Amino acid sequence: MSTPRSLSRTDPRSLPHTLSRVVIENIRPQVDAGQRPAKAIVGDGQSVEADIFSDGHDVIRCEVRYRHELSTKWSSELMSPLGNDRWRATIPIESLGGHHFMIRACVDRFATWRRDVDKRLESHQDVSEEYVVGAQLLHDVGRRAKSKERRWISDLVDQLTSHSTTLDDAVGVLVAENTGSHTLREAMSSARLSHLTGLSDPELCVTSETYCVTAEPALARFGAWYEMFPRSTAPAPLRHGTFADVVARLDYVSSMGFDVLYLPPIHPIGRSGRKGRNGSTTCDEGDPGSPWAIGSLEGGHTAVHPDLGTLEDFDVLVAEANSRGLAIALDLAFQTSPDHPWVTDHPEWFYRLPNGSIRYAENPPKRYEDIYPLRFDGTEWRFLWQALLDVVEFWISHGVTTFRVDNPHTKPFAFWEWLIASVKAECPQAIFLSEAFTRPRVMEELAKIGFSQSYTYFSWRSTKWEIEEYMTELTRTEKSDYFRPNFWPNTPDILTAELQQGGQAAFLSRLVLAATLSSNYGIYGPAYELQEHLPRTIDSEEYLLSEKYELRSWNLQDSRSLAPFVGEVNAIRRAHPALHYNHTLRFHPIDNDQLIAYSKDLPTSEGRDVILVVVNLDHSFAQSGWLNLDLAALGLDPLAPYELHDLLTDAHYTWSGPRNFVKLDPQSVPCHVFSVAPSGGGADGA
Amino acid sequence: MSTPRSLSRTDPRSLPHTLSRVVIENIRPQVDAGQRPAKAIVGDGQSVEADIFSDGHDVIRCEVRYRHELSTKWSSELMSPLGNDRWRATIPIESLGGHHFMIRACVDRFATWRRDVDKRLESHQDVSEEYVVGAQLLHDVGRRAKSKERRWISDLVDQLTSHSTTLDDAVGVLVAENTGSHTLREAMSSARLSHLTGLSDPELCVTSETYCVTAEPALARFGAWYEMFPRSTAPAPLRHGTFADVVARLDYVSSMGFDVLYLPPIHPIGRSGRKGRNGSTTCDEGDPGSPWAIGSLEGGHTAVHPDLGTLEDFDVLVAEANSRGLAIALDLAFQTSPDHPWVTDHPEWFYRLPNGSIRYAENPPKRYEDIYPLRFDGTEWRFLWQALLDVVEFWISHGVTTFRVDNPHTKPFAFWEWLIASVKAECPQAIFLSEAFTRPRVMEELAKIGFSQSYTYFSWRSTKWEIEEYMTELTRTEKSDYFRPNFWPNTPDILTAELQQGGQAAFLSRLVLAATLSSNYGIYGPAYELQEHLPRTIDSEEYLLSEKYELRSWNLQDSRSLAPFVGEVNAIRRAHPALHYNHTLRFHPIDNDQLIAYSKDLPTSEGRDVILVVVNLDHSFAQSGWLNLDLAALGLDPLAPYELHDLLTDAHYTWSGPRNFVKLDPQSVPCHVFSVAPSGGGADGA
Repeated sequence: MSTPRSLSRTDPRSLPHTLSRVVIENIRPQVDAGQRPAKAIVGDGQSVEADIFSDGHDVIRCEVRYRHELSTKWSSELMSPLGNDRWRATIPIESLGGHHFMIRACVDRFATWRRDVDKRLESHQDVSEEYVVGAQLLHDVGRRAKSKERRWISDLVDQLTSHSTTLDDAVGVLVAENTGSHTLREAMSSARLSHLTGLSDPELCVTSETYCVTAEPALARFGAWYEMFPRSTAPAPLRHGTFADVVARLDYVSSMGFDVLYLPPIHPIGRSGRKGRNGSTTCDEGDPGSPWAIGSLEGGHTAVHPDLGTLEDFDVLVAEANSRGLAIALDLAFQTSPDHPWVTDHPEWFYRLPNGSIRYAENPPKRYEDIYPLRFDGTEWRFLWQALLDVVEFWISHGVTTFRVDNPHTKPFAFWEWLIASVKAECPQAIFLSEAFTRPRVMEELAKIGFSQSYTYFSWRSTKWEIEEYMTELTRTEKSDYFRPNFWPNTPDILTAELQQGGQAAFLSRLVLAATLSSNYGIYGPAYELQEHLPRTIDSEEYLLSEKYELRSWNLQDSRSLAPFVGEVNAIRRAHPALHYNHTLRFHPIDNDQLIAYSKDLPTSEGRDVILVVVNLDHSFAQSGWLNLDLAALGLDPLAPYELHDLLTDAHYTWSGPRNFVKLDPQSVPCHVFSVAPSGGGADGA
Repeated sequence: MSTPRSLSRTDPRSLPHTLSRVVIENIRPQVDAGQRPAKAIVGDGQSVEADIFSDGHDVIRCEVRYRHELSTKWSSELMSPLGNDRWRATIPIESLGGHHFMIRACVDRFATWRRDVDKRLESHQDVSEEYVVGAQLLHDVGRRAKSKERRWISDLVDQLTSHSTTLDDAVGVLVAENTGSHTLREAMSSARLSHLTGLSDPELCVTSETYCVTAEPALARFGAWYEMFPRSTAPAPLRHGTFADVVARLDYVSSMGFDVLYLPPIHPIGRSGRKGRNGSTTCDEGDPGSPWAIGSLEGGHTAVHPDLGTLEDFDVLVAEANSRGLAIALDLAFQTSPDHPWVTDHPEWFYRLPNGSIRYAENPPKRYEDIYPLRFDGTEWRFLWQALLDVVEFWISHGVTTFRVDNPHTKPFAFWEWLIASVKAECPQAIFLSEAFTRPRVMEELAKIGFSQSYTYFSWRSTKWEIEEYMTELTRTEKSDYFRPNFWPNTPDILTAELQQGGQAAFLSRLVLAATLSSNYGIYGPAYELQEHLPRTIDSEEYLLSEKYELRSWNLQDSRSLAPFVGEVNAIRRAHPALHYNHTLRFHPIDNDQLIAYSKDLPTSEGRDVILVVVNLDHSFAQSGWLNLDLAALGLDPLAPYELHDLLTDAHYTWSGPRNFVKLDPQSVPCHVFSVAPSGGGADGA
């Protein structure tokens, strides 16, 4: 730790051992100088970029070498120049788990020679001497090439040096672009790269440090989440819902097009300190308590609440959900009620006050009398950590691989890094969503140490300026290498002022924003689609009659339900691959601060998929403005007309040129979600 | 190289050894993840920043530990929070050379306890149990504290736990802010930090990697350079100037306020391939040749041109310059003429063609027949490198420690890194200016590997947008940790179109821009102050009748000479410490694209030094506009009037509020350089 690394590089007394002339810097993706893996997705190509250059003007050749962590065989992909010494290659990610990569680069003497001879020929200089240099290079490289190229190159050398070959012919063979000698150039480069790791010519090549990406399933990149309290799913009011009721609700959730059904904790709930309706510290008979106050005589984190059913019922629910393409996500809330079995079995896992009592959860002066925090750094922490890992593995053994983690920022980073790595070693498809509504650096750290996705500040980003700035940070900075946002317009803890006051327009527009700005998003329902908007008190973001503290019965047949709209939005998301990614997000100027416009686009086998979204951020008044589209960036001919199909209203428009008028009224649908295509060419245009 | 670092951090099978809860990230200054030293200046405080945070809500305490590379004793400085988990300390840099630093951080349990007890007391909670916790913390920490604090804390524990102390009294002692117990809090924190490296409580603390800064003399940060051809200094036309003539010219240079006098190569010049006037490939009798075609029968890089005088004459020049506060800078041009002694003594240091001849310098199709490049990666490279180091050390032994390096980007980075480190190990005050007009990544790399300063693209940044963007890159990004710009409006190779066509206004405004935007700048004179502006050909940046190929005689008495103006600008620079740094540079909006406005400011013992510069970028027409000053950023009361003193024209103005009208006419002085101060308060206001 205390040996400065800079000294090891520049000992003034000694000359360097080798003469690496090539520099490789600013490699992406990269997290904390390569100390942690970046994030990747199985089936996606992973772009790898770096600044690569040498002194002087020589031609560079470079490649990415990569392998899965369980394989010993390296593959490689040549990099292409992007300009300004930036290079890129895309490597295939074909399986889950860790993939290592490094960059190898060298000065390509033959390509340099080729380029310079071309320039000399163009200015009619004598190249006879250069021809000999080229033939020597050919000879030197061919001698060290692999057998495949060696024979071929050596034949060529013979041919070039035979007396029957004129200088012009020989030079012609060496520099010709469109004949067999194009192959020559490739062969020379490839022959050179193939022995880069050998001892010959070590001064010409350099290899970067090894970096790592962790590949997760596509669901980590693209998914619509639906949060629902199982106990509020009973068809009869005031009856405690069961897993069987949840099964009966699956078609409803599935028909809205969700990918993940996330259930708040399903475990037995403590009685000591139990909170009453609206979070009251006094609890009435029959109040069910908060599901996050986990543990009672009936069991702890591996038990299910008896009123919900049995573990077998839960297994049925998982199977039924999966059969509809729905993943079940469980809540990992690593805390206990005072009645959790661990309190008596493992008192050393809790904070004890000098008088022997256990400390409640608190954030002074606030107190949570129904919850004990666990002590992650007590003397017996290793046993506690293992027990918590056992909890996750227990639910994995019941078919759950998607987890929403409650308040991870109040537990040590080292714990999560260890837990997630341990789980993924056995179950690389596991997905962890971090529910850390806290300071930016802390949220980023949780993403760096392994969380697949994170809740964000989206809920409170309302103005055009806020949204554009936040999305730029999420999609255009190094944060995008490791931090995957999951946008929630509401949660059981977050009923924003905007939803409280904005009426239906707010519910529609916040849904469209979440679902199209971010490839991952979720809503807490049925509160969302039923437009539940009353807060517990003015200035509170808590719901009145929150499901956290009581059973609720929801009228899903309410004619004002937004369920059909939610279904449409999710169907659009599924149909349009552009919405499955965030990296192409681009904002377009529109001359009204109440209107925001952005696009996502992606090449597909049927042409470029282009989605253009315009949203009215004003929930009270119609707003209009002139949009200025960056047509070239969307792959559209700026001089040709193009077709827009509003996927929400099924309206069709033909536009020409970048400037176009848009008007959106909060009294109807306050958003456009356009599919855009060149006139006559768009599969979606009709 | 091939062991992924990520794996060593996250072995899923094993629990971590310790429980560091604190994270330290994004440390500045930092170059290439700490692999290379950042740049510092002797006598300046060096700011060190990092993101430092832990899980949860505990109070953090952190410090920078630092030492000179030749010392074994670490000092430390407490860090202060800047908000958003960013922390900063300023460490003193008291000697030249490498300084190591690291950051140590811990959770401060006592401070956390203190903060929480305050909150509990505010909401009238019972703190009797908390008092016992506090006393225990006191006891635990006191037991492990150094002797100084141990006795003191233990007395306090005795006092607190004695029966005569009431709970209220004890709590009062523990939390009181303005009595002796303020010392208590400090003592507790300091006691904790003092054993951070010990074995006790290792889970609470963490130490960063060690980083390095290299301290250079103040001249590396702030200096005005003057380039002059010694052979053109003779008072009589067509006579070859001598070192004695340069001595006679020193008062002229010194009176203009320059800090460095840089001389193009002073060595014997080759005859083979010698270039004639205007760079012609045919050379007439009497043409002196390019000084960069180094080496003849009379000697090479350690010889002086016989027409300039002797080494003893040169020694006199160095002494005379130094006595006027002028440093002499020499040119390190590591190439030779075909007549250099090394060509015969060390043919292996050159590129040989198959026919045995030596390759000329060329950048195909261009050829430089008067110059041979050295082969830095030939079989005998170690001997060549040592010989070049010997050259630098030779000139250091003659009193020169400032070097302008010719085309460093055509030699291996590893060579410069080794050479500069070797020189600085013996002579840490040495300054190296990189003359690399090439691609951005290459210029940055040269700065990273040790060059003190670099030529820049400033010469070609003319519009407001270009200047603002370039200065933001240079002063607001991580580049400022290692890349020190040196701005040159002209050089013997660069007569920009702007200077060719802009008349006197261009010469005045480019000088003011260079001298006030960048703390380091230089001009090539007397061409600059005499407004030499004719190019060799249209579309060429070469001077007509360039001194590179012939002797010139300059009329320093020309009434149009800008020498007095140059002297004024340099005097303003010296008098105003705000202009000695670049990090406070701030652009202010002005509603005319032809006007640019910016400020620099610095706290001094006599109050804040504030310089405001406004320049008309249009060399033909007067331009006016409304300036919108960020008064708060300049430390000015937005509601009070303030005084401006134009240091170029001696005019005085009183302004109120941020918006003020400015008009500048290229027919007179097209720039304002204001000293700004609150009304009634400015030492410079009268």
